[in-house]
Amino acid sequence: MENNEIIYGKNPIESLLESNKRTINKIFLAKGIKFDSKIQKIIEIAKSNGIIVQDVPREKLDSIAPGSHQGIAASVSPIEYIDFDDFLDNIKVSHEQSLVIILDGVEDPYNFGSIIRTAFAAGANGIIIPKRRSTPVTATVEKASAGAAQNLPIIQVTNINSAIEKLKEANFWIVGAEGSGDKYYFDINYDMNCALVLGGEGKGISQLVKKHCDFIVKIPMPGKINSLNVANAASIMIYEIVRQRMTKAVKSV
Amino acid sequence: MENNEIIYGKNPIESLLESNKRTINKIFLAKGIKFDSKIQKIIEIAKSNGIIVQDVPREKLDSIAPGSHQGIAASVSPIEYIDFDDFLDNIKVSHEQSLVIILDGVEDPYNFGSIIRTAFAAGANGIIIPKRRSTPVTATVEKASAGAAQNLPIIQVTNINSAIEKLKEANFWIVGAEGSGDKYYFDINYDMNCALVLGGEGKGISQLVKKHCDFIVKIPMPGKINSLNVANAASIMIYEIVRQRMTKAVKSV
Repeated sequence: MENNEIIYGKNPIESLLESNKRTINKIFLAKGIKFDSKIQKIIEIAKSNGIIVQDVPREKLDSIAPGSHQGIAASVSPIEYIDFDDFLDNIKVSHEQSLVIILDGVEDPYNFGSIIRTAFAAGANGIIIPKRRSTPVTATVEKASAGAAQNLPIIQVTNINSAIEKLKEANFWIVGAEGSGDKYYFDINYDMNCALVLGGEGKGISQLVKKHCDFIVKIPMPGKINSLNVANAASIMIYEIVRQRMTKAVKSV
Repeated sequence: MENNEIIYGKNPIESLLESNKRTINKIFLAKGIKFDSKIQKIIEIAKSNGIIVQDVPREKLDSIAPGSHQGIAASVSPIEYIDFDDFLDNIKVSHEQSLVIILDGVEDPYNFGSIIRTAFAAGANGIIIPKRRSTPVTATVEKASAGAAQNLPIIQVTNINSAIEKLKEANFWIVGAEGSGDKYYFDINYDMNCALVLGGEGKGISQLVKKHCDFIVKIPMPGKINSLNVANAASIMIYEIVRQRMTKAVKSV
């Protein structure tokens, strides 16, 4: 039990129950909470799955949840990262135009969580993170992902460069985002299996990883500032890929 | 002095000094801090501007700065919001394709800060926020903006709808971002003076503001989730405008 994680907030717990991918040990509900439709739905699904729902003083939730818990929290078994080889096999059989996000050292859990949320919304296949110098999936990450961390495959690898090489063998093109890029991100045609590499806050993509990229692209900044928040940069690039693929699909009808 | 704000972190303080737009009362430096090039530069600019730099125990910085301060903080006079009419007059004389961001009730300071950062990077003209139901520019907002809040005009208005009407009179088109939109955000031609309206976390754009929009557009979500973090959504839309304007400029050469 000691490795259990606390997930909190209505939407994350609703997604947790709906995804049915992780073992929920117990749900804690603040005494006197308003039974709105979301809370009712959560209790209903929990009960039909035999999950214990326990009333606790609001102070207990304050002490176990590190942020705004809205009167509800759940104790769940730790997230299971997906095995890289399994992930790759699955992509190979099921997708023609894949999109994988590689985060080379994102350390802020809010950024990581909101990138998971955007990647999932965009229909990406998964996110690859390194075991070191990177935030793992914590409760804060899950909260910031609005539940998407329950559903989007997240792959933890020992070595990003080996993962990149295997992606290349599987017919992926590797696109790194960096201020030093010689093209703008919208000047690439993403009509291909694509792995998008973003670096961590402050440091950017590491030199060795950069060498493994097929393209290095940059985001133009007409204003007088030379960097963006990494989650915003990721969202801009991910949605350029969505835009290109959707508008192309419309054109070819 | 009691309304003074604490700005902290190396980059925000560097921007603060460079922008030269706000009165800095004092800079606090943690005793024993490493004098790297950035700290040296900050001290140099401060001294040449007659700003007092005071050594203080690191614990003092911990108590006055609500986040990671990197050993440096500054006490500054509160940010000055720009007057809406002045802002509009200034835009009218100086721009042909303006971009204004209207945030209808963004409450999270990290989101607001990172939207300011993206808007400034994208070369937007300014951000309009309402006086009520919205976070003002706090130290957390400034930190999340990586200094951009010092430089991008931020306009606080009593009534967003009156501001929108004045923007319309000034030849602006108003584009609201909402899940209920009938077009995708990339299906609009942004070759116009444009004000982009985004709603707050959870609530979206208010009904009345929505009625004042000329277009309501949505961001497609091929994945199984129906919303994005507001800062990521803002970044995606702002950069679609940048992309269109830049690629159009290239084509017409």
